[in-house]
Amino acid sequence: MVGTELLLGEIVDTNATFLARNLADLGIDVFYKSTVGDNLERISGVVRAALRRSDIVIMSGGLGPTDDDLARETVSLVTERPLEENPGVLRDLKHWFAERYGQTPMPDQNRKQALFPRGSQIIPNPVGTAPGFWLEKDNKLVIALPGVSHELRTMFTETVGPRLSSLGSGQVLVTRNLHFVGIGESSLQEKLADLLREQTNPTLALYASGGTVRIRMAVKASTRQVGLGQMKDLEAEIRKRTKEYCYGADGQTLEEVVAQRLVEQELTLALAESCTGGLIAHRLTNIPGSSAFLNRGYVVYSNQAKAEDLGVDPATLEQFGAVSAETAREMAQGARLKSQTDLGLAVTGIAGPTGATPTKPVGLVYISLATSGDTIVERHLWKGTREQVKNRTALMALKLLWQTTK
Amino acid sequence: MVGTELLLGEIVDTNATFLARNLADLGIDVFYKSTVGDNLERISGVVRAALRRSDIVIMSGGLGPTDDDLARETVSLVTERPLEENPGVLRDLKHWFAERYGQTPMPDQNRKQALFPRGSQIIPNPVGTAPGFWLEKDNKLVIALPGVSHELRTMFTETVGPRLSSLGSGQVLVTRNLHFVGIGESSLQEKLADLLREQTNPTLALYASGGTVRIRMAVKASTRQVGLGQMKDLEAEIRKRTKEYCYGADGQTLEEVVAQRLVEQELTLALAESCTGGLIAHRLTNIPGSSAFLNRGYVVYSNQAKAEDLGVDPATLEQFGAVSAETAREMAQGARLKSQTDLGLAVTGIAGPTGATPTKPVGLVYISLATSGDTIVERHLWKGTREQVKNRTALMALKLLWQTTK
Repeated sequence: MVGTELLLGEIVDTNATFLARNLADLGIDVFYKSTVGDNLERISGVVRAALRRSDIVIMSGGLGPTDDDLARETVSLVTERPLEENPGVLRDLKHWFAERYGQTPMPDQNRKQALFPRGSQIIPNPVGTAPGFWLEKDNKLVIALPGVSHELRTMFTETVGPRLSSLGSGQVLVTRNLHFVGIGESSLQEKLADLLREQTNPTLALYASGGTVRIRMAVKASTRQVGLGQMKDLEAEIRKRTKEYCYGADGQTLEEVVAQRLVEQELTLALAESCTGGLIAHRLTNIPGSSAFLNRGYVVYSNQAKAEDLGVDPATLEQFGAVSAETAREMAQGARLKSQTDLGLAVTGIAGPTGATPTKPVGLVYISLATSGDTIVERHLWKGTREQVKNRTALMALKLLWQTTK
Repeated sequence: MVGTELLLGEIVDTNATFLARNLADLGIDVFYKSTVGDNLERISGVVRAALRRSDIVIMSGGLGPTDDDLARETVSLVTERPLEENPGVLRDLKHWFAERYGQTPMPDQNRKQALFPRGSQIIPNPVGTAPGFWLEKDNKLVIALPGVSHELRTMFTETVGPRLSSLGSGQVLVTRNLHFVGIGESSLQEKLADLLREQTNPTLALYASGGTVRIRMAVKASTRQVGLGQMKDLEAEIRKRTKEYCYGADGQTLEEVVAQRLVEQELTLALAESCTGGLIAHRLTNIPGSSAFLNRGYVVYSNQAKAEDLGVDPATLEQFGAVSAETAREMAQGARLKSQTDLGLAVTGIAGPTGATPTKPVGLVYISLATSGDTIVERHLWKGTREQVKNRTALMALKLLWQTTK
């Protein structure tokens, strides 16, 4: 991991976490991780040591256009392979700048991003200017990727991972994750106590974060198919005991599952958000094709907007306040009626740090879902920061939607 | 950093971030960080290399009571200092167990937590069972701390930091960050080329991510005040050359700066979001007190909502399409008019991956801002995933708001 900023404690190194997890999934043992600043001598020392003790060295960072970006130079030095300009990459770089900035020519600085140690294979970067490279020498393999997270992730997922998996030992670590909402880590642990105690192959582990819990099953097997087969019975048993809480597996998100159900059941949705301020709409519109079910959303931050856009009765706002079961209900019904959708989902609450009253503390939230039949209203009281209250509220609103579309 | 779990990608290494930041504050340069699993041979190799190239080696992890906890053994091996039981620590350990678990005697396992390489000074652990140690040999210093975060933090803050600062040069590293939007990393570099080339004290570095660029200034000084003083002229020079792009310093976010300006200028805002799906509202409502300026937001995902809620002329939608300068303009003006706010900000575009037409590619976005005077419309073409298009659009919409409220 190359970058002085990583040694200053100003950023947390999530690239390393991503790579470690993905390498584990490929059955490649990660024995060492080294972090070093943007200094040619020090990076070279680290890469030399890494090549002595490991078969594969993956580098992150140092592929940018500035003088500080030294990954190419280091690998060239250590492997004694001179840097050569790749005409195809240079053309792509120029094209990228032309497309983005019109007439502006590519800055001279960026020309170095087309340099690679002789014998490298290019790792395409579909989401940025810095391509990576893959260099084999003396039975060792060096892979250089950019430090920008989404570029590293895209390039690993699209190119590096598939190529590495074809190199491996024959055994792969197969993992499968199940995701839970509406149940705490300890309650889930109790339901599965005997399994957690006795289960060794596949192994089982629980991880909690931000209102959801993840169960991770892992097994080493000759192929992914065989590994998944070995986890089938265990998964069935877990699901049997926990089905009202398990919303998905592996990469699935709650909004994805909800979106899928709404599309399948041909249901349309309108949102009315106060304390989440657009977060529910943001999460649902992260799903491609969400326009099929999401007709619209209202971020009704003022009482005026609640009344004008959703038809909440000013008397309700006056009598019960903006944060109340009554207002939540009228917001959900109003959003549904106004948009002529099947469902209207509303949240109102006090995200903090200000806005609390003697009877309404920070973290008090009402969630309401209006359907063609009845209208549900839930009351919650969260602890935490403004962002945590927003996140937890959005999660529980999506959960309500998920439960209702079962 | 010792621990197999750190190499599996299941946890993010926040201890390293904590140590790095605190060492920087003490003026101690961190040149290398190594992470290694719970394996005696591999840890020893890493500690040996670290002692060769550095004056101080700080270890985190491996001080627990299990067979996997190998920090003591490793340091003993590498420094050739035998392990010795410390009677005072053993007494404290027994006391800790008696106090916590009443009659239960201390498990035999924990006895090894009273072992230390000969010549070590004990680093007390007021919040857990594992004390650390401080061992000087041949002008090198090894410090071993537990991996449990709050224990490491407490011990560093109470004992290690103060002792290190009395060893040090008396100098602290002072950093200041400036944030830029609307300018690329290489263009910024060109504007500051001479400074970047010649500037060594303070040092200067550029970091780009997600459409913004950060300049980091750093200087070693006797106190934080002195260091900030030494950066003043440099900051003034940078700001003079780049002022139309520099939106903030240190922890400030663009939405925070925008929110502050709207509040100061007593301006109110209404949002109309199509392709960002609520993300702009979400970012602005992350700022405490945003209800002072944000009257409401519309997530108008359907044409029906654009017409009904914002009064966009169906003929405009028909003739120019939902993703057009004309529609963006009517959305911004409609949001402003409907909400009776000072400003109306609208975005419409194709976030992808679907929705493109022969003349309108994925990433085509229009941003419009309506004021009491004129209405601005910007056209952009982004590359990237759906989330990237959303993020970049939200960023540029906030930038337009920021520029307009200057």
